[in-house]
Amino acid sequence: MTPPRLALNTATTKGWTLAEAVAGCVEAGIGGIGVWRDRVQEAGVAEAGRILRAAGVSVTSLCRGGFFTAPDGGRDDNRRAVDEAAAIGTDVLVLVCGGVPEGSTDLDGARARVRDGIAELAPHAASAGVRLAIEPMHPMFCADRGVVSTLGQALDLAEQFPAEQIGVVVDAYHVWWDPQVYAEIARAGAGGRILSVQVSDWVTPLPAGALLGRAHVGDGCIDVRRIVDACTAAGHAGFVEVEIFNEEIWQTPGARTVATLVDRHRTLFSR
Amino acid sequence: MTPPRLALNTATTKGWTLAEAVAGCVEAGIGGIGVWRDRVQEAGVAEAGRILRAAGVSVTSLCRGGFFTAPDGGRDDNRRAVDEAAAIGTDVLVLVCGGVPEGSTDLDGARARVRDGIAELAPHAASAGVRLAIEPMHPMFCADRGVVSTLGQALDLAEQFPAEQIGVVVDAYHVWWDPQVYAEIARAGAGGRILSVQVSDWVTPLPAGALLGRAHVGDGCIDVRRIVDACTAAGHAGFVEVEIFNEEIWQTPGARTVATLVDRHRTLFSR
Repeated sequence: MTPPRLALNTATTKGWTLAEAVAGCVEAGIGGIGVWRDRVQEAGVAEAGRILRAAGVSVTSLCRGGFFTAPDGGRDDNRRAVDEAAAIGTDVLVLVCGGVPEGSTDLDGARARVRDGIAELAPHAASAGVRLAIEPMHPMFCADRGVVSTLGQALDLAEQFPAEQIGVVVDAYHVWWDPQVYAEIARAGAGGRILSVQVSDWVTPLPAGALLGRAHVGDGCIDVRRIVDACTAAGHAGFVEVEIFNEEIWQTPGARTVATLVDRHRTLFSR
Repeated sequence: MTPPRLALNTATTKGWTLAEAVAGCVEAGIGGIGVWRDRVQEAGVAEAGRILRAAGVSVTSLCRGGFFTAPDGGRDDNRRAVDEAAAIGTDVLVLVCGGVPEGSTDLDGARARVRDGIAELAPHAASAGVRLAIEPMHPMFCADRGVVSTLGQALDLAEQFPAEQIGVVVDAYHVWWDPQVYAEIARAGAGGRILSVQVSDWVTPLPAGALLGRAHVGDGCIDVRRIVDACTAAGHAGFVEVEIFNEEIWQTPGARTVATLVDRHRTLFSR
């Protein structure tokens, strides 16, 4: 039996179109799917929504908006991302907030721009019925992807807005090292702020660029079970998305990757 | 004029023996040197001490002890490191505390072993007149190098011991991303815990393995000046060690690298 609460994130099966990923989920009995925008745009937004609705899978998130520190603040693209989320039937848009602008050393300034960008996007998201999920990124991505570096910092930001509008992502890969992570998960849950839980595992050595170093749950040093259980205990009853960026996994046929996901998920929760 | 408080860490000029590095410092008017153990052992401990004393440079630290999470807890090697520090005339031994043990996901357990290892080493260090400087490592090294991931966590550990015995390293490369870093630097200074300040800069993309990605101060996105100034304001009157792991810089003649250090240091503090 496929374990409940398992969701596939389309970044894990990069070789699959949206239709293939959805079919793969249905075939494997996976009830949820987190979708990246490249897959949505490739299919067309309306068609993507149709594929997802027809299959009856839960769309757990759309990845991603953000990059508020880009020269244009990501403004128009973020509004489109909100609209796409609504169109494909998810109320969660994941925000990767952007790094330190090229040539700058003003980290506080970049963080202020993130706050301002969220404040600007929030009304449009609210009117579309989409909640914005701030994803704290591992500090190794602070320079170039996300200046929101800890779950506590993400919550400090989110709590400036209503819980119905802004929450956080708990991605085990980004937060496992944080001495405060369990306290912050409890805080996030108590405030109704956990909008997405994502998992993968940490292995070394990191590849060049650091982005594609993630591994299947169980292959690395993250206590994924403890993190997921903490989210559950804090009130998160939703799906657990497996999101793995890894060149070798991308070369693997999607059905085999999905079978591994199911297997690892079952092992994880049978312990 | 060579700016005051600039120190060379021998890891920056990997092609130089200890004698060459010391001569390079004297030539460039650099008054301090942080020494790695490979350079000490290559010269022989007694000879290394002689070289350093003869040159009259301040030995700002010995790098490194630690790796408390290794199978043997690094026990004997750490005692030798303490003895070497005393022998070469520095009272600061930098501790890189070790990662998550192979095959384990027990991060809390690894962190407990670090605390126990420090407690075990502390009396020997105290009797040798050597202070142990816990170096919080960037979280990207949590798995394989250091489970002490933030300055706050390093201080939580250090403060379990007298300030005369245990302190911390503030390495800009490891801590720049931390939303709490300035508060923690103030806390470290107030407690007399800043035993070493190290600098380099963060550039992307990270190379494979993530270790050798550091750059000259001024080439990246770290506000090094702000971090050093915060340490100074917190009471650190000692040297600022430049420690850069970078394959390209290692291929550069030492004298040219040192000239760059002097130039960057001058630029940094003239702003």
